[in-house]
Amino acid sequence: MHKVEARLRVRYAETDQMGVVYYANYLVWMELGRAEYCRAAGIRYRDMEADDGILLAVAEASCRYASPALYDEEVIVKTWIEDANPRMIRFGYEMIEAGSQRRLARGETKHIFCNRERKPMKLPEKYRPAFGIPGVS
Amino acid sequence: MHKVEARLRVRYAETDQMGVVYYANYLVWMELGRAEYCRAAGIRYRDMEADDGILLAVAEASCRYASPALYDEEVIVKTWIEDANPRMIRFGYEMIEAGSQRRLARGETKHIFCNRERKPMKLPEKYRPAFGIPGVS
Amino acid sequence: MHKVEARLRVRYAETDQMGVVYYANYLVWMELGRAEYCRAAGIRYRDMEADDGILLAVAEASCRYASPALYDEEVIVKTWIEDANPRMIRFGYEMIEAGSQRRLARGETKHIFCNRERKPMKLPEKYRPAFGIPGVS
Amino acid sequence: MHKVEARLRVRYAETDQMGVVYYANYLVWMELGRAEYCRAAGIRYRDMEADDGILLAVAEASCRYASPALYDEEVIVKTWIEDANPRMIRFGYEMIEAGSQRRLARGETKHIFCNRERKPMKLPEKYRPAFGIPGVS
Repeated sequence: MHKVEARLRVRYAETDQMGVVYYANYLVWMELGRAEYCRAAGIRYRDMEADDGILLAVAEASCRYASPALYDEEVIVKTWIEDANPRMIRFGYEMIEAGSQRRLARGETKHIFCNRERKPMKLPEKYRPAFGIPGVS
Repeated sequence: MHKVEARLRVRYAETDQMGVVYYANYLVWMELGRAEYCRAAGIRYRDMEADDGILLAVAEASCRYASPALYDEEVIVKTWIEDANPRMIRFGYEMIEAGSQRRLARGETKHIFCNRERKPMKLPEKYRPAFGIPGVS
Repeated sequence: MHKVEARLRVRYAETDQMGVVYYANYLVWMELGRAEYCRAAGIRYRDMEADDGILLAVAEASCRYASPALYDEEVIVKTWIEDANPRMIRFGYEMIEAGSQRRLARGETKHIFCNRERKPMKLPEKYRPAFGIPGVS
Repeated sequence: MHKVEARLRVRYAETDQMGVVYYANYLVWMELGRAEYCRAAGIRYRDMEADDGILLAVAEASCRYASPALYDEEVIVKTWIEDANPRMIRFGYEMIEAGSQRRLARGETKHIFCNRERKPMKLPEKYRPAFGIPGVS
């Protein structure tokens, strides 16, 4: 199970009046994680969407919060593929504070491959190896 | 199972370049839903936090997306309590487009009652009836 | 100078660790203000964009902050047109806390009418009255 | 006039249905710019706030948008001090797309030094050199 790391620094805008990162922002960090995963796999999500009209429509998302992230902390988002086939892909994420290696959260998202009209489609062959999907469908 | 409704209109800021609401924003809507639930139950989350130092620290959040919400649509967030005891509370949410009654998403959050130092605590007796928790602990 | 009012309640997500609303969120509220202005003038910004491909590209935005808005407060956004011609429109905004009438902020945005390719265009005649622009160009 | 550079990559969450970055997010980028400015000047905004209770309350913000930023582009935020005295500080910002050096936007923010109760205060001597404020008041 190959893991790719993305790094980010907590923004003031991401905190709330509890003094910690607002819970919905971890889903934004997961987005950064999977963009980085794609980049490491040799594809750019931007191009997949712009050139080939393939969207990764989110079907499910979940997050378990272990320890709150604080302003200006450096966060590592580790991203891996939990499951994938020509119809859908499921990413796993682990978020860690870089300095102390404190575990912040663990998440998962499931996506359906869709075309520009948001209709489910099969992922074209050329993109399958990047996501570890066997090419012969 | 008592359900409370909150209403909101989709903001331009909440959309993304896919032309639909960005997935993390549904968690913000769930926050509006539970604030409204508290208000309907006769307590104001703001006061609970400011006056009594009780925080609802998020432990888990999940969402299943059925149909994308669009800019300027009116959304109804139905919120109910799935489970509660003096240590924690679990809310359920259903999000529906008001005009067409289209089902948008379904979510769940689990919270731990904490004090100002973010240490787990038992919810004071006076707040228990509002959350359907038996008063005698 | 006709003013239109929009109302909103401050979200937890909009606060930051200073315990007040994060400064960029006032620009989101201005967006709600001008959407409401359009609605009151008989047009829906959504339709203008979807049906006629007219975008209001933001050219300038500014805000002066008077008193911080707090979680769960009700905010009134008063919106008016400061200046408009077939090429551009300038909105003014005043944000007030509904309960105490406390002045929160005052803002301004300038927009260029653009087509779907984001090229500047002249606003079609049919939309001009709504923005107080003389119909004969 | 000393300029400090911060770098960021445009997030999907930051785009809107116009296909470009939503206008309020440039103010978030300015926040990253001034945090980086402080860091380069040898102080950490986080510590200034946590240890000495000094807040930079925003009094004014403005932005002029030149060219829209797109998803996944790398953005350079150049930040400098336009004016500063023991009571307030004014930052200037220039945002540029790293690849093409395309000018995206130019902004300005004005801040009042405040204590934990959000009352205006004079910036303590030890922090003045970092902001180019003469130490003898």
